[in-house]
Amino acid sequence: MKIKTIEWLTDQGKVKLIDQTKLPHTFEYIVTDDFRVMCDAILRLAVRGAPAIGVAGAYGVVIGANSLKHKEIGSFRLDLRSIMAQLRAVRPTAVNLAWAIDRMGRVLDKQNDVESARTALLREALALHAEDEAMCRAIGEHGAGLLRDGMSILTHCNAGSLATGGMGTALAPVYVAAEQGKKIKVFSDETRPLLQGARLTAFELQANGIDVTLICDNMAAVVMRKGWVDAVIVGADRIAANGDAANKIGTYTVALLAKHHGIPFYVAAPTSTVDHSLTSGDSIPIEERSGEEVAGFGNVRTAPPGVNTFNPAFDVTPHELIAAIITEKGIHRPPYNFHDIANLK
Amino acid sequence: MKIKTIEWLTDQGKVKLIDQTKLPHTFEYIVTDDFRVMCDAILRLAVRGAPAIGVAGAYGVVIGANSLKHKEIGSFRLDLRSIMAQLRAVRPTAVNLAWAIDRMGRVLDKQNDVESARTALLREALALHAEDEAMCRAIGEHGAGLLRDGMSILTHCNAGSLATGGMGTALAPVYVAAEQGKKIKVFSDETRPLLQGARLTAFELQANGIDVTLICDNMAAVVMRKGWVDAVIVGADRIAANGDAANKIGTYTVALLAKHHGIPFYVAAPTSTVDHSLTSGDSIPIEERSGEEVAGFGNVRTAPPGVNTFNPAFDVTPHELIAAIITEKGIHRPPYNFHDIANLK
Repeated sequence: MKIKTIEWLTDQGKVKLIDQTKLPHTFEYIVTDDFRVMCDAILRLAVRGAPAIGVAGAYGVVIGANSLKHKEIGSFRLDLRSIMAQLRAVRPTAVNLAWAIDRMGRVLDKQNDVESARTALLREALALHAEDEAMCRAIGEHGAGLLRDGMSILTHCNAGSLATGGMGTALAPVYVAAEQGKKIKVFSDETRPLLQGARLTAFELQANGIDVTLICDNMAAVVMRKGWVDAVIVGADRIAANGDAANKIGTYTVALLAKHHGIPFYVAAPTSTVDHSLTSGDSIPIEERSGEEVAGFGNVRTAPPGVNTFNPAFDVTPHELIAAIITEKGIHRPPYNFHDIANLK
Repeated sequence: MKIKTIEWLTDQGKVKLIDQTKLPHTFEYIVTDDFRVMCDAILRLAVRGAPAIGVAGAYGVVIGANSLKHKEIGSFRLDLRSIMAQLRAVRPTAVNLAWAIDRMGRVLDKQNDVESARTALLREALALHAEDEAMCRAIGEHGAGLLRDGMSILTHCNAGSLATGGMGTALAPVYVAAEQGKKIKVFSDETRPLLQGARLTAFELQANGIDVTLICDNMAAVVMRKGWVDAVIVGADRIAANGDAANKIGTYTVALLAKHHGIPFYVAAPTSTVDHSLTSGDSIPIEERSGEEVAGFGNVRTAPPGVNTFNPAFDVTPHELIAAIITEKGIHRPPYNFHDIANLK
C-alpha cells in the first residue's frame, strides 16, 4: 500500500493518520500524541470504518497513557480509565471501538507499575493493529484466488484500506491480485448519499495505482450489461448465521443486478462481522439517517424544502444472491453455516 | 395542475414560463414578449423536456412575429425566418424544437399578409400547446385506469408537467388518478447525476399536492422489498418498434428491480416517441456526457482530480421487462408491435 491510513511512529511516540474528512481534495495527515486530538478525529470521522476505528482507539489509549505524569499505578490506572471512557464515548455505537478499548483495559488490569503498563499497552495496540493488517491480507490472499489477470470488478461504498488498519476487506483481493502482477480494473459506485465510493474508494485505488472508473450507482446495470464486470466484491457490516449480509445502502441492488447479468457477487469481511446470534438478515436492525443526506449533495440542497425522504443507511443482501463470502479463514460457499464460527474452515 | 410550466397570456401578448433553473429553491416565472429571452430560456434549460421545448419554440415564433414592425409579408417572412433559425439553433439536437418550428413555418408560408400571419401563428402555437395538453391528459386517463386508490408508485427522473405543456407523461396517470379521488403515493428516485427527481419531480408533485417521498436511486430496491411499491411508471426518450425503451440512465435498473420484486413496470410516452425505423433498442444511440457530472454536483466536486468516469445519459430497458406501454392511444401490452404506429389501437 502506498498510503497508510493509520500508523504508529515509534521514534516520535505519536500516531499518524490520514484526515479522511479532507479527502479526496486535500491529502493531509494528523500526527498527534494528544488523546483529545484522537477523540476529535474519531468524532469528526477523520478516521472511519470499523477496523480502523478500533486501531485508532487502541493507539488513543497508548498516547493517553503516555501523557499521564503519575508514578503510582493506582492513580495512573484511575486516570487512564477516565481517558478510555472518553475515547469510548466518542462513537458509542461503534462496536469495534468498544472492543479495542476493552482489550486495552484487560492489559492495563494485569500491570503492576506505570512503566510496564505503558510498554504493555503499546505492545497490545501494535498487536491489535498487526492482527487487523494480517486479517486484511488473509482476505486479500483468499480473494485474489478468485481474480484472474485482466478481470474487472465492481465495488460499492468503501471497504478498503481507508476503512481498516490494513489493505481493506472488499478491496484487499484487488490489492493482492495487483501484487501478484494481475491487471485488475475496478468500477466504483459513488454510493449515495454520502459518496464514500467517489470520495474514498476512487481516491485510494487511484493513490495505490489501481485502474478505477467512477460511476453513479444507477449506472452499474449498464456497465454489467456491456459485459465489463467479471465480479462484484463488497464489504459487510454484519453477517447473519445463514449468510445474509448487511452492508451500505445500495448493496442489495448491486447483488440483484449481478444475479440478473450472471456475475458472481462476493462479500469480503472478517469473521468478526458474523453475528451468529442472528439466524437471518431479517433481524438485523437498519439505521435510518437524517433525510438531509438525501435532500442534498455536499453543502448543496437539491430537494424542495419540506420534502419527505426515506434514508436507510444499510440494506440486507439475502444469502441466495451471494456466490461466496471471503473471510480471513477462506472462501465460504453456500449453503452458509456461520452458527459455529470457531469451526469455520 | 396548480402550477403551469408554460402559458400564453392573451391579454398581455406574452409567454409566461417557470424558470426551472431556479427550482426547487426559488419559484419564479419568466414573462416575456422578447424572442431572445425565449432563446436564452431554452438554452439555459429554464424550460426543458421535449414536449415543453416544442411548445416554448412555437410561442417563441409568435412573440418573434409580434416584435417585427414590417407591414409587407415578404420582408416579414424573411425576418421571421431568421428568428426561427435562431430559435432552432439554440438546441440543435432537440427534435421537438425543430418539429414545432417547422410546423410554424408551414403556417407562415400559407399567409398573404402580416396581420393574418400573426393571427394564424398564434392560433397554431395555441393548437400545438393544446394538443400537447390533450396528449398528456389522454396518457393520464389511460394510465389512471391501472391505478387503484391507496397505491404507491415509483418513478425515475422527471416526466411530469415540468417536461411538457400539460400534466406530463409518466406523472399524468398519477395526476388524473388524484383528480378521480384516488389517494396515490409516489416515490421519486433522485436520479443522479443531474438530480431531476430531487429538483423537479419532488417539487412538482409537492406543489400539486401529491404525497411524494424522495429517495436515492440505490434505495429503490429496499422500498420495493418492503412492499411499498405497487407499480413503476417512467417516461421514455425513444421507443423502438419492438417496445425496447430508452430513458434516463437508471431506468433499466429500476425495471430489473421491479421484475425481481414482482412489480409491474410501465412506460408512459406519446406515440411520437416511437421510432419505428429501429427494430430494437440495440440501435438506439446513447449519449455520453461529461464526467464532471459524475465527479460532483453543482459546484461540489466529490471525486479525486483526474479520476476516470463513465457517464451514459440514457439506458435501454428491454421490452420483456415492460408490463405495458401507455400512450395517448391506450395501453399497449406485449408483444409490442410499433412498426405501424398509425394503426395502433
